[in-house]
Amino acid sequence: MSINYKKELEDAARKMILVHKPKTLIQLIVRMIVHKVRVRHAGILLYEPKLNSYILSVSRGKLGLKIPTGYLRIDPDNAMIRFFMNKDNNRYLDGGAVIYSKINALLKNKYLLRKHRDLKETLTSLETQMNLLEVVICIPSYFQDKLLGVLLLGKKISGRNFCRKELDFFIALAHDVAMAIRNAQLFEQLQGQIERNKRLFIETTKALATTIDAKDHYTHGHTERVTQISMKITRRLINACRIDVDSGFLDDVNISALLHDIGKIGISENILNKKGLLNDEERRKINEHPLIGAAILEPIEELKRSIEGVKYHHERFDGTGYPEGLKGANIPLISSIIAVADSYDAMTTNRPYRPALTRKQAIDEIRRGNGVQFHPVVAKTIIELHSEGRL
Amino acid sequence: MSINYKKELEDAARKMILVHKPKTLIQLIVRMIVHKVRVRHAGILLYEPKLNSYILSVSRGKLGLKIPTGYLRIDPDNAMIRFFMNKDNNRYLDGGAVIYSKINALLKNKYLLRKHRDLKETLTSLETQMNLLEVVICIPSYFQDKLLGVLLLGKKISGRNFCRKELDFFIALAHDVAMAIRNAQLFEQLQGQIERNKRLFIETTKALATTIDAKDHYTHGHTERVTQISMKITRRLINACRIDVDSGFLDDVNISALLHDIGKIGISENILNKKGLLNDEERRKINEHPLIGAAILEPIEELKRSIEGVKYHHERFDGTGYPEGLKGANIPLISSIIAVADSYDAMTTNRPYRPALTRKQAIDEIRRGNGVQFHPVVAKTIIELHSEGRL
Repeated sequence: MSINYKKELEDAARKMILVHKPKTLIQLIVRMIVHKVRVRHAGILLYEPKLNSYILSVSRGKLGLKIPTGYLRIDPDNAMIRFFMNKDNNRYLDGGAVIYSKINALLKNKYLLRKHRDLKETLTSLETQMNLLEVVICIPSYFQDKLLGVLLLGKKISGRNFCRKELDFFIALAHDVAMAIRNAQLFEQLQGQIERNKRLFIETTKALATTIDAKDHYTHGHTERVTQISMKITRRLINACRIDVDSGFLDDVNISALLHDIGKIGISENILNKKGLLNDEERRKINEHPLIGAAILEPIEELKRSIEGVKYHHERFDGTGYPEGLKGANIPLISSIIAVADSYDAMTTNRPYRPALTRKQAIDEIRRGNGVQFHPVVAKTIIELHSEGRL
Repeated sequence: MSINYKKELEDAARKMILVHKPKTLIQLIVRMIVHKVRVRHAGILLYEPKLNSYILSVSRGKLGLKIPTGYLRIDPDNAMIRFFMNKDNNRYLDGGAVIYSKINALLKNKYLLRKHRDLKETLTSLETQMNLLEVVICIPSYFQDKLLGVLLLGKKISGRNFCRKELDFFIALAHDVAMAIRNAQLFEQLQGQIERNKRLFIETTKALATTIDAKDHYTHGHTERVTQISMKITRRLINACRIDVDSGFLDDVNISALLHDIGKIGISENILNKKGLLNDEERRKINEHPLIGAAILEPIEELKRSIEGVKYHHERFDGTGYPEGLKGANIPLISSIIAVADSYDAMTTNRPYRPALTRKQAIDEIRRGNGVQFHPVVAKTIIELHSEGRL
């Protein structure tokens, strides 16, 4: 069966541009080579910046033959890598490819070896490496003079030699692969940066929120615990398909729970840390903290939903909460989640006016407040988590 | 001159994969078409998700001919767009392209027009639109059944018709362009997300820092002003090549300046807001704020340099500052920048124990403290900013 190499190349290039994971991309390519060109096995050595090494991805091929293992990671000082890194060695390449039989022939050319003093060692190392990997063709891929990777090919299943047309196909393919990999690596970098930035944002918010939390001497560690419980409830709500939310909801719960008491920064330490009961005026002051917190964050458009969580985490399901006395479904879900987590943690820690309840007692309180103080579905979820010992 | 279309396609595909700005990519393509194929002009209508419109990018071509302006933005209900959105209309495409002369011929086919009732209106609208844009070929590009864009071609400069080979080239090109654009749009999306996340991080940090700042009644707006001045100094230091820093330095200064007084959260309001002079014990307490601030942020690996800014912003160049009495070059640059900005703002605002200095008086103080309290290069820079009226 004859192959339309031009068409294969174009198809491959089109597929490549849409694959943004280097690993998936390489699997796609080596599988394609092994199946279309019928070689015993194929592999790609790909530079991995994080490891400063070349990593080998292989396809076993139809006959189950494969490049020997133990070469999964290859350092930049490996003979083959050094050979391709030195662009002077390109004169030993056959239009872009190293062919085992040609290297072998060069090593028998005594005139040439005498003329170039280090050549024998260089070519012998390369030949040894190709032997070890059982490959007969190596094609380097460069991006802006940097060796991105090497395409490795075993023998053809038919036992015949590769023809020029096939070599040209592989050389063009290796070039396209280099571009596609570069593209995919850029994607991975960007996605990694997004992840790092997100972590930085969460960590910094956590550090600041925890600090503000610390001003209230009676609630040590409260913010972190409420955040953890809120996240557990939310994950369960999502996994059990009890709520239908977008992909950003869990992150918003995270931020909102971290910041739910941020408004306490606006309340005097003397009130926050008062021993004994608060008078009406002091109680009124303390009850302002959800509104103060929402006002602090209000300019930040992206935090819209998290701000709702902060603002309404003291609303009650029956409409007797504050600041607005919202009722039932009018209370944003994010606030209902934080409200339950907040109450549970408040009940299970010591307060100036009463000792801590046990976990079981707190859950009983939530059960009693189900549909009165608490959102029924959220209350049900924390009760489940408790009965499974996951709280 | 005959063109190797296959080679042009491959070259184009290789270039495309590395261009990650849709606009640049389109300019590259239309310029290539106009120059290589010698058409009067070429254009690409590209779907812009943010606007829910198709935006026209054109190349004037060698003869200065161009698609008339006023069509820069085309709504999805435009006749041409609707024509291509309806996949049933693909039967009027010539192997993937709409050819003006063919449409014209169809409109003269009375038998056909009688058979398909809406056809006359559909084709007439399309013909009118092609006339308006002065194009003779339109090629739609789809990605997963969504119309990504339309490639538009004017007449050939030679006046001849396009041959099949040329049409096939354009059709393949349009397909590759669609993929590359999709790729570029994904890149833009990721980069946009990075920008948004960064802004979110800065804004949230600012909101929290400003709030903590507000606990100290005498320093209203201090954090924001110190941040602005620190940024101005840093930009000048970088632009005047007085410092050699990596690309993240300015962001780190931003965060560090926002958080420089964060440690005050750990100091009692009674000390912070005391009227009159502080006693030794109170002074000692206040001087702990850089260490408290650094301790709050310490777990956050990515903030390493910003934390140094917080920790050492009360060090003095002569080694008589706190908390460690670091001297000269041992003080991190980021701290030296914040130190100067902090002092300048403190001097130019009212304090309980003294009224504000004028800007000029404050700058004179900095000049006097140059090399004693302040880092010489940083001091020099704020003095320059002041004399240029940029402070």
